[in-house]
Amino acid sequence: MHTRTIFVVSDGTGITAETFGSALMTQFNVKPRLVRIPFVDTADKAHQAVRQINHTAEIEGKKPIVFTTVVHPEVQQVIQSSCKGMLLDMFGTFVQPLEDELGEKSMHRVGRFSDVSHSKEYFDRMEAINYTLAHDDGQSNRDLAGADVILVGVSRSGKTPTSLYLAMQFGLKVGNYPLIPEDFDRRQLPPALEPQRKKLFGLTIDPGRLSSIRNERRPDSKYASLENCRHEVAEAEAMMRRSGIKWLSTTTKSIEEIATTILQEVLPERLGHY
Amino acid sequence: MHTRTIFVVSDGTGITAETFGSALMTQFNVKPRLVRIPFVDTADKAHQAVRQINHTAEIEGKKPIVFTTVVHPEVQQVIQSSCKGMLLDMFGTFVQPLEDELGEKSMHRVGRFSDVSHSKEYFDRMEAINYTLAHDDGQSNRDLAGADVILVGVSRSGKTPTSLYLAMQFGLKVGNYPLIPEDFDRRQLPPALEPQRKKLFGLTIDPGRLSSIRNERRPDSKYASLENCRHEVAEAEAMMRRSGIKWLSTTTKSIEEIATTILQEVLPERLGHY
Repeated sequence: MHTRTIFVVSDGTGITAETFGSALMTQFNVKPRLVRIPFVDTADKAHQAVRQINHTAEIEGKKPIVFTTVVHPEVQQVIQSSCKGMLLDMFGTFVQPLEDELGEKSMHRVGRFSDVSHSKEYFDRMEAINYTLAHDDGQSNRDLAGADVILVGVSRSGKTPTSLYLAMQFGLKVGNYPLIPEDFDRRQLPPALEPQRKKLFGLTIDPGRLSSIRNERRPDSKYASLENCRHEVAEAEAMMRRSGIKWLSTTTKSIEEIATTILQEVLPERLGHY
Repeated sequence: MHTRTIFVVSDGTGITAETFGSALMTQFNVKPRLVRIPFVDTADKAHQAVRQINHTAEIEGKKPIVFTTVVHPEVQQVIQSSCKGMLLDMFGTFVQPLEDELGEKSMHRVGRFSDVSHSKEYFDRMEAINYTLAHDDGQSNRDLAGADVILVGVSRSGKTPTSLYLAMQFGLKVGNYPLIPEDFDRRQLPPALEPQRKKLFGLTIDPGRLSSIRNERRPDSKYASLENCRHEVAEAEAMMRRSGIKWLSTTTKSIEEIATTILQEVLPERLGHY
């Protein structure tokens, strides 16, 4: 059973606030139940959200924790005046000191607080996703020069999810190539990758973990056997070392951590963007 | 030229804080340059980050704005005592009132503040991505019953990016099916979708916008012509109306907004998870 209900009330999607609130809660021993209430952009919807929160307060006998990212003053006012939860105003808390520092009033533009897509940015992101899908798993050698990053590693080392995350979150065009037994026999990188050396980044993984991932897909196959996984990982790491490719083990890392490390190593300028 | 530099200093990836800080800045008339400094988890790295921030303060003659999400007290201490930027402590600001409300001290567990992958959650997310890739663009009718959501719409209406976002962000298994001229001639949904009616959600798009997106790919084709786009969109909307499928126009919406609306309509329980 959860020990505390956490609400996220937003006039946008509330996705960022939810990720943030959920990360904050990991610092405590409570077992949170997270409830996101998006698109609360009128006083009516605010009253509805407050009713839901106050109902929870009543049946649980504990104050729900309520993260709000509400730009519209009237909507925030409804929540502040009648909500029986513990309010944490993620918008107002930071906007007021920012107004002082920047010497201007904030615009209180509703909707702009959510992860808005501006046309050019949105288009680039779509292009990046299309490129990345077309270049998944070594499917295409076309326009490899157009890639921002090319990931290499054995099958199931995490290349595809990492590539897609880099495309969706950062608008990067990412290729990825599996390293396969033929490459190990030739003791060389796939030939199409040679001109792209500077863009290459390697992913590796603990052989035991790899074996268990592969076993989910093809139980009891040679492909999934610990012995074969050990062999492939050792060969892949040796090849990356010989070729001077930077690499990282994905075994205990989240996609966000892997992606951020790749940016640091291959595209540090993308950490300071705009 | 940017008018203010915004730093995000985190002992994790800082991705959530960056999204949050960047959303806050859209409320002001400044043109921000965002610099993310991830993995600042030692006093040494904190000193390095502070040097970079103070250097910027000096050459720009303006206080940089510094969002920190640092769990480790010693690291935060270094930043607080020597940073010449305007500090906005996203961790401490909320942790202190939470400690009072929850009646316990926070654990100050470094690393837990970032978007950590717990094993089961991580595995589900991988499975969702694999499922979604295998079921992109009507590629496979296998195990459609296993889908959480199935998107339908004309080619280039936003199905693929939305599907991938739902998989990566929420761990949903998403199928997507193009509605094509053959479906319009038969005046019926693709037959494989009939048993999955409850999981269907439609995406539509303004024909002018669709035409310009398609023209990027296949300039001056019949496929991209405004006339054809008008026809396909009208047919698709008529079919969704006849079939009682809920739908939404993607024309002016971000992926996050589209995804959140789909959750509200098809899987409302996923907004209150854990």
